[in-house]
Amino acid sequence: MKRASLALGIDLGGTKILAALIDKQGKIYDSEEVPSQVEPGEQIIRDRVIPLMQTIWERNARVRPSICGIGIATAGLVDTKTKTIKVAYNLGLKDAAIGHLLEQRFRLPVHIGNDANVAAIGEWMWGAGKGYRDVIYITVSTGIGCGIISGGRLVTGVGDSAGEFGHISIAWDGPKCACGNYGCLENYASGTAIARQARQIIREGEATKLAYGNVEALTAKEVAEAAIDGDGPAIRILQQAGKYIGAGVTNLIHLFDTEIIIFGGGVMKASQILLPVISETVQDRCIPAMKERVRLVSAMLGSEAGVKGAAGLVFSNGV
Amino acid sequence: MKRASLALGIDLGGTKILAALIDKQGKIYDSEEVPSQVEPGEQIIRDRVIPLMQTIWERNARVRPSICGIGIATAGLVDTKTKTIKVAYNLGLKDAAIGHLLEQRFRLPVHIGNDANVAAIGEWMWGAGKGYRDVIYITVSTGIGCGIISGGRLVTGVGDSAGEFGHISIAWDGPKCACGNYGCLENYASGTAIARQARQIIREGEATKLAYGNVEALTAKEVAEAAIDGDGPAIRILQQAGKYIGAGVTNLIHLFDTEIIIFGGGVMKASQILLPVISETVQDRCIPAMKERVRLVSAMLGSEAGVKGAAGLVFSNGV
Repeated sequence: MKRASLALGIDLGGTKILAALIDKQGKIYDSEEVPSQVEPGEQIIRDRVIPLMQTIWERNARVRPSICGIGIATAGLVDTKTKTIKVAYNLGLKDAAIGHLLEQRFRLPVHIGNDANVAAIGEWMWGAGKGYRDVIYITVSTGIGCGIISGGRLVTGVGDSAGEFGHISIAWDGPKCACGNYGCLENYASGTAIARQARQIIREGEATKLAYGNVEALTAKEVAEAAIDGDGPAIRILQQAGKYIGAGVTNLIHLFDTEIIIFGGGVMKASQILLPVISETVQDRCIPAMKERVRLVSAMLGSEAGVKGAAGLVFSNGV
Repeated sequence: MKRASLALGIDLGGTKILAALIDKQGKIYDSEEVPSQVEPGEQIIRDRVIPLMQTIWERNARVRPSICGIGIATAGLVDTKTKTIKVAYNLGLKDAAIGHLLEQRFRLPVHIGNDANVAAIGEWMWGAGKGYRDVIYITVSTGIGCGIISGGRLVTGVGDSAGEFGHISIAWDGPKCACGNYGCLENYASGTAIARQARQIIREGEATKLAYGNVEALTAKEVAEAAIDGDGPAIRILQQAGKYIGAGVTNLIHLFDTEIIIFGGGVMKASQILLPVISETVQDRCIPAMKERVRLVSAMLGSEAGVKGAAGLVFSNGV
């Protein structure tokens, strides 16, 4: 194997940490994962991330000279210049200088990006967005986020916080959101909103498969599963969410004149229900010339988008 | 004067055509303008644009070797690659290969861009956005548009149509817009909407200075002037428009994490009323870390933004 042809990607999520050695074709050469931790906090880097990387590092001593850098996808807010996690609530991290730490430990350049941006890079380099120059990756999960590639470059913004798609208002006088804005898309169509709407219809006594089990613990995943299974109320909730998302997506198209929009994230497991409604809504709302140009598709890399995008950061020399 | 240090900028608007020789500091060396034409149509290029350029060309024979290119800012949709005006309704132009024509006529490279994008480049290179890398220029006029510079590059989109800020929905179930979308910002806060709202309050019999003269011919300019003059209903209409614009601007900030947002266009002549309301609305709605980073300011180049930006296209070698 040629020198400098592998990247060590890390996907640092609230549930699990995935590390993988990835080549320039986006192929996983070796990988390993651990649960994030029961107790989040600073020690997660020392106790989880570094040992996980060490495992990969030692298991691949033969190709080690080929590893040209480390890429990190993380939940939360990052500073790509100082390679710091500014704040990641579900990891219990604040001002964590993970880049500096890993550079010292492994003597390799480190790049960092937030999870939606990095997944966008993964899908762009090796997934559904390959070959395009204007790509938006949207993740519909507990929250809603996106990563935007415009003219072949990631839109980061001045503080690495661009792409807060879940916090654009689709109802200027809508309910107040925790972020400060009103009528945020997340309030209508995130996994959290979908689960809340399902609990509401159960309380109202509507006949639905969702009514079995612990109603208060109901998740969007269960709503998605029930919808796929043909449950009418669950389908209706997802279809309405698709209409809200379609309204938001139309706004993105009108601002970015995008070639391809890629949908990922847990809630998109019900893409067979969501994607047609999103597409119909965009067809209904979008400026004709722009909707003719844009394609709406499902993500291809699944749960590997983050770790592959992290490797992509290395190969593209940062965001 | 050194060679290759002047650009010939053209601002092709619905009312007037402005041509100017501009140096690399954004200073106008010579300029000339003509009304666009009573009858719009293809002959506008032959009968108006070329003679206007010829005037500048002949008057500046001495510095002619210093002219390194021609830049065009135009209303309507453009194709920057083929240098064509795809459609500009108020100029009566469709598939007009103006770039090719001018290249043949003047033997200079031609660059083209739509007016909002080009004005953004002008303000970025020599106006309120100088020195920043993440800049949005918003024009509030008959319609509402914007030009977006992200990471030091203009966001054009795949079909040169990015920045349709007037056609983002701020009310997902709002009234149908001519563009196809629902609840578009333009419907609430453009010059057209402001004039319509003023006519409405006159019809409802409210006491306002606006009620004098031909109510049906009332324009946003007159509403702005009445508001500056202290007319209560006119102030109220503009303040409400400012709230809508502020909601839209918050969406832009959440998507682009912008450093500076620059407001221009005819309606912003009442910036003393509009800008404080827009700023307050952004303060109320925006994610705290992002609103701390962003500045909201008035445009500096006024009616010269287009022609200067057109010259900027030449110096930056296209969008």
